[in-house]
Amino acid sequence: MSKLTIALDIMGGDHGPPVILSAAIKAIQHHPDVNFTLCGDESIINPAIQVLSDAERRRVVVSHCDQVVDMGEAPTSALRHKKRSSMRKAIELVQAKEAHACVSAGNTGALLTLSFYLLKTLSGIDRPALVSMMPTASHHKVLLLDLGANVNCTPDILFQYGVMGSVLAQQVAGIASPRVALLNVGEEDIKGNAQVKSADQLFKDAPGINYIGYVEGDDIFTDHADVVVTDGFTGNVALKSSEGLAKLVVSEVKRHSQRNIYTRLMAKIAFPLLKSIYNSVNPDQYNGASLIGLRGIVIKSHGNASKDAFYYAIVQAMQEARMQVPDKIKTKIETVLLEQL
Amino acid sequence: MSKLTIALDIMGGDHGPPVILSAAIKAIQHHPDVNFTLCGDESIINPAIQVLSDAERRRVVVSHCDQVVDMGEAPTSALRHKKRSSMRKAIELVQAKEAHACVSAGNTGALLTLSFYLLKTLSGIDRPALVSMMPTASHHKVLLLDLGANVNCTPDILFQYGVMGSVLAQQVAGIASPRVALLNVGEEDIKGNAQVKSADQLFKDAPGINYIGYVEGDDIFTDHADVVVTDGFTGNVALKSSEGLAKLVVSEVKRHSQRNIYTRLMAKIAFPLLKSIYNSVNPDQYNGASLIGLRGIVIKSHGNASKDAFYYAIVQAMQEARMQVPDKIKTKIETVLLEQL
Repeated sequence: MSKLTIALDIMGGDHGPPVILSAAIKAIQHHPDVNFTLCGDESIINPAIQVLSDAERRRVVVSHCDQVVDMGEAPTSALRHKKRSSMRKAIELVQAKEAHACVSAGNTGALLTLSFYLLKTLSGIDRPALVSMMPTASHHKVLLLDLGANVNCTPDILFQYGVMGSVLAQQVAGIASPRVALLNVGEEDIKGNAQVKSADQLFKDAPGINYIGYVEGDDIFTDHADVVVTDGFTGNVALKSSEGLAKLVVSEVKRHSQRNIYTRLMAKIAFPLLKSIYNSVNPDQYNGASLIGLRGIVIKSHGNASKDAFYYAIVQAMQEARMQVPDKIKTKIETVLLEQL
Repeated sequence: MSKLTIALDIMGGDHGPPVILSAAIKAIQHHPDVNFTLCGDESIINPAIQVLSDAERRRVVVSHCDQVVDMGEAPTSALRHKKRSSMRKAIELVQAKEAHACVSAGNTGALLTLSFYLLKTLSGIDRPALVSMMPTASHHKVLLLDLGANVNCTPDILFQYGVMGSVLAQQVAGIASPRVALLNVGEEDIKGNAQVKSADQLFKDAPGINYIGYVEGDDIFTDHADVVVTDGFTGNVALKSSEGLAKLVVSEVKRHSQRNIYTRLMAKIAFPLLKSIYNSVNPDQYNGASLIGLRGIVIKSHGNASKDAFYYAIVQAMQEARMQVPDKIKTKIETVLLEQL
């Protein structure tokens, strides 16, 4: 496995294989230095990859899987009864070191459970986290974690999230000394619940982390921090509620534009402007969520991801594989834990 | 106190008395049937209310207070050392039934603590909640609570929030049978933490509540529910992160518009359209957060509220006072608790 190899779960996601396959074909065509293993129903995959040239086709392996993890399926059911699923196969390829990373748009709970079970966490890490880049003003990107891997987080887990987020910001966003913050309901020391207060102390005692203290929800989208740490319940709600507001803005643009002939004309004239604004806050651009803390790279794409969104998730998988993110996290967590002795 | 009387804390808020006073003057001028008590430094208030006519002036009482609760002050310090503050005075007027409601843009923690201490909760209610209306598509409004009154919520408290939210949606938003939902990280039964799961059961067992189950963060801005219930930590983050994204959209509109002469022209032509879209998702329009569950009406305006935002908060105070919201909550919680016996 000298050449970079990415395993794709073709069957996951709300829109099904066609969208995933067109993203996969784009990735195959745009990245001639990468091999791909497409996991899923070969009767769906084989006809779709006919568009590839012979040279492109040679970089593709189809791994037939006759099971699919359903979007609403309980993670325990996926673990027990879907041993031949495309999702599991993609993770197993990473586990067997036959792929450097895998990408799925399938059932998040199942992906977390299968990844945790098959890949195991790095030593020093209790729980994996789901992390994603959020858009901000000034094109600066902020990493938010956890987005829903663990709804209950101890202070230790929050601290480990900070370490992992810090490594990812260095390796993927290229920030030399990432500013790590804890998400809270106020910036003053007295604010917050018991977990947040204890985690705050752990960060203050860790010299290897550039900890800047508390930030509030609106700071996720500003230039205050590079890494924002929170538990999976709060992080998931923060992500989805901001996505909800973004969708509201888009629907209001449509609704207000269609009011009369003047508003339609205005919208038509301003279309390039509206489009570029939309692109800069568009969730699809920061679609891939990394599942970090594991002994392997797993990227979760949004369930209702478009072709472009799934393509970005694949690119992210390549980048993390090239930067060897799990190894870097392992080294960092060992250093930080050693410093604390 | 037959005539509706509203007490205003003139000294609170990030922008200080000038903004609050101009909102107060607008309210005095637009609501000839309402009396106002302005609490704060008379040397600031008296010159500002010179603009009022004699008739308007007769509906205004200035209650001089020589202390101010600072925005960053600890709630316990405000409670102990600011007994002559404008914030406390406004709440004391409600406590003494000399005002039907009070409004403050000051320190949220101090307002919560002082209100809780002075007004006490209604019987059957363990903790007050901060609740606000969120914008949605189709002009439908959703009540979100708790926005930060209690960072730790037991299942019982979450249930009480649902009852209170339901009453507020009936009385203020005019919805006959408000759909109450619990905020969670997924809609399936298996999702969520222990508190949410227990609260879910409490709601299912309560026949007097139109409970519709779980919703996710993005559903706050859709037409799924009329009342979305969550703990104060998560609710605060949901509110602020969506506000953060709204601010990001506004800053992106500015940034993209100023790129070149064409984009400036486009923005100029589309200005009425952009303005109407902005107004429909503008936080100022749903600015007033009600502190509910107390034996009196307290409205919290955003700290950095504009004149219009603080004015909306005053209007909301009048509306809740007219609908006698605390009495209605008291009746509803008694009925629901009785049904459960």
